[in-house]
Amino acid sequence: MDKKEINIGILGLGTVGKGVLKVLRENQDFINEGVMPYEIKVKKIADKNKNIILEYKNDAKILTDSVEEVINDPDIDIVVETIGGFEPSRSIILKALKKGKHVVTANKEVVAKAGYEILSLANEKKLHFLFEASVASAIPIIGAFSRSLTSYPILEIAGILNGTTNYILTKMSEEGRGYQEVLEEAQKKGFAEADPSKDIDGFDSLYKIFILSMIVFKAKINLHDIYCEGIRNISKTDIEYAKELGYKIKLLALAENKNQELNIKVHPALLPVKHHLASIDGAYNGILTRGNGFGDLTFSGLGAGSLPAGSMIISDIIEIVKSYDNYFNKFKYFKERKVRNFTQTQSSYYLRIRVKDRPGVLADIAGSFTEKRVSFASVIQKGEAGEIVDIVFLTHKAKEGNVQVALKKVAKLKCVEKICNVIRVVDV
Amino acid sequence: MDKKEINIGILGLGTVGKGVLKVLRENQDFINEGVMPYEIKVKKIADKNKNIILEYKNDAKILTDSVEEVINDPDIDIVVETIGGFEPSRSIILKALKKGKHVVTANKEVVAKAGYEILSLANEKKLHFLFEASVASAIPIIGAFSRSLTSYPILEIAGILNGTTNYILTKMSEEGRGYQEVLEEAQKKGFAEADPSKDIDGFDSLYKIFILSMIVFKAKINLHDIYCEGIRNISKTDIEYAKELGYKIKLLALAENKNQELNIKVHPALLPVKHHLASIDGAYNGILTRGNGFGDLTFSGLGAGSLPAGSMIISDIIEIVKSYDNYFNKFKYFKERKVRNFTQTQSSYYLRIRVKDRPGVLADIAGSFTEKRVSFASVIQKGEAGEIVDIVFLTHKAKEGNVQVALKKVAKLKCVEKICNVIRVVDV
Repeated sequence: MDKKEINIGILGLGTVGKGVLKVLRENQDFINEGVMPYEIKVKKIADKNKNIILEYKNDAKILTDSVEEVINDPDIDIVVETIGGFEPSRSIILKALKKGKHVVTANKEVVAKAGYEILSLANEKKLHFLFEASVASAIPIIGAFSRSLTSYPILEIAGILNGTTNYILTKMSEEGRGYQEVLEEAQKKGFAEADPSKDIDGFDSLYKIFILSMIVFKAKINLHDIYCEGIRNISKTDIEYAKELGYKIKLLALAENKNQELNIKVHPALLPVKHHLASIDGAYNGILTRGNGFGDLTFSGLGAGSLPAGSMIISDIIEIVKSYDNYFNKFKYFKERKVRNFTQTQSSYYLRIRVKDRPGVLADIAGSFTEKRVSFASVIQKGEAGEIVDIVFLTHKAKEGNVQVALKKVAKLKCVEKICNVIRVVDV
Repeated sequence: MDKKEINIGILGLGTVGKGVLKVLRENQDFINEGVMPYEIKVKKIADKNKNIILEYKNDAKILTDSVEEVINDPDIDIVVETIGGFEPSRSIILKALKKGKHVVTANKEVVAKAGYEILSLANEKKLHFLFEASVASAIPIIGAFSRSLTSYPILEIAGILNGTTNYILTKMSEEGRGYQEVLEEAQKKGFAEADPSKDIDGFDSLYKIFILSMIVFKAKINLHDIYCEGIRNISKTDIEYAKELGYKIKLLALAENKNQELNIKVHPALLPVKHHLASIDGAYNGILTRGNGFGDLTFSGLGAGSLPAGSMIISDIIEIVKSYDNYFNKFKYFKERKVRNFTQTQSSYYLRIRVKDRPGVLADIAGSFTEKRVSFASVIQKGEAGEIVDIVFLTHKAKEGNVQVALKKVAKLKCVEKICNVIRVVDV
């Protein structure tokens, strides 16, 4: 079949735009194999900063400082908006749709503030406006809600949706440090912006829970009706008291659809340490959702960053390309692959060996393992000397085949009663 | 627009088939609203057990004991295979595809053993063969892998994919009981089958990691090349030693794509207690996945059961219906909804109040709250009497507005220096 080129235009080469380009280029073959017979190509990139060309010399031909040039290019099928912020992003997206282009973005502010307007135009034009990367970057939560959790109403969503504030609260909690000190460190390290207000005051979480609510509850709601409180007032003292009471403090975004009115809000909260979201620490995001008869579904992953956001934008692009063909089988191409022989795999091992405890027993066992290049990370032995006792070994990484051979030899040692158990250790 | 009926035929009214019917009927309006202008209808149900009619009297007209009758019905668009097991399911699915019907199933054994054959026929016929419910029921993991995590190669998958064994291991660990005793209890409670071998010996996990590997790595592999070991040999003693060493024992399904050969295996493993999967307890399933530059993505949820499996089958049906229309916007219909006024929402509260500690201070504060129907679950006070001290209160559930009014009154009390902080508690 002939290749069909799908041309992409990227607007804005900031953190996310750079991520899009990087993911696309590093995984070009992989991506194009997935959308065969289509092929995704970057046709133009617009960025106001003329110096960006120094960083992207090889792209000199496709770089421009004019957004209009990209939007007006009749060959461009899909526009990626990675400028960020409300305006001019909103106007640019609307223009691109009017020109007949699909639009993909990671811009939560523009989706929260102008999503209905943009989607209405997209629907009218039969174009896609997709924004998976706008909420909890690497977590495919919009896909899950819009594609998979479609057969029953969702009753509840609770999310840790902002990585910056979660990082700050985690540091305060784990290191017993104050808010201001940790914020300044986060700014130095690039985890928090110079003007951290959108994160710290909860607006970023607000935009995200708004987007989730709009999709999940198919709801037309008003952003200004949602209570939003950030983490400025959380002190070390509160975190310590909370810990004493069995809680962690997290910035939560909550949405409930249990009565006539939706109950949506963003505020810091005390979460019981056993709560599914309480273990979401550092820059991670987590989302818990409940539907009737379901128990809890929890998703967690990195909520921000150039590559997580970039790759979710690419996956939206792939979704658009797949929609060009209304029978695009998800499971089409399988390549013959070999599974590694189990004896050739590596692992650490937990070994419980029953022995007659007498001098030299450890040396005898260790010797048999050392011969097969299996060494020990720790050994536990309980009970009185002279008895029949179990010794527990944790080994360093070793080859399965070698461990099996060593175990056969150990089993024959006079001092060994029985190999009670062999369990592999999975560390990462 | 005219309604277009999509007719479903269900084969087998066991646990999963009943779930399909229940989800479809309880959420009929919700589901049909999502696929407008299409409408999903159950046209025929086949079950060998003639007595099933006593349970489904209202469906007498659409019940049959003949699979052929369903497959040969020219009006049926989508066949749901909920018979389970390898044969005759495989043959029935192939026949249904030959008759031009899309097929949806939760049957992991048939997908693992005959998936390539079935998908090859489905591709040839341009029909869908979908099986989201076959792996980790309620967790939309196949959707995530095939729809969203499409822009970079996945390097690693680690999963707790069998609820029965996870339930047994959790009980053994938490209650210090032996394997045989807990297994028998699980059988009595219906969490384990009378013949538990498929779960206990790891085959269920094997089928599931096979399905994930085939999809994620686009790999044609041989089921018999995968090492599979169950939990029969795990004893209370091993669980205790593991705990002492800082580990939990879980039945893990692992798949790695880091070298030329795939590394896929199922076996019990010691997991560090801090591992993302170590907290997946009881009947829950959990899946951890890694891609380049990504950190970890973790999914958890109920891995089995009538409703989780049933609703994922329905979501596959919805996906097929949406594919009828190659511009099926995911975000189309929004209904005006009200967000509840924040003062009308309910919460428990953490209150830190700075007071001049003298007799009667607690009574004064408590009085102001009681007036507004806010009561305390616990109170912490430290420091010496007579000093300026912080008192921390945890309240029972109360209305936000009432708490705000009470706090204003409390702030004016002579003994109160300052309301230091008010943080909501999220318990569920």
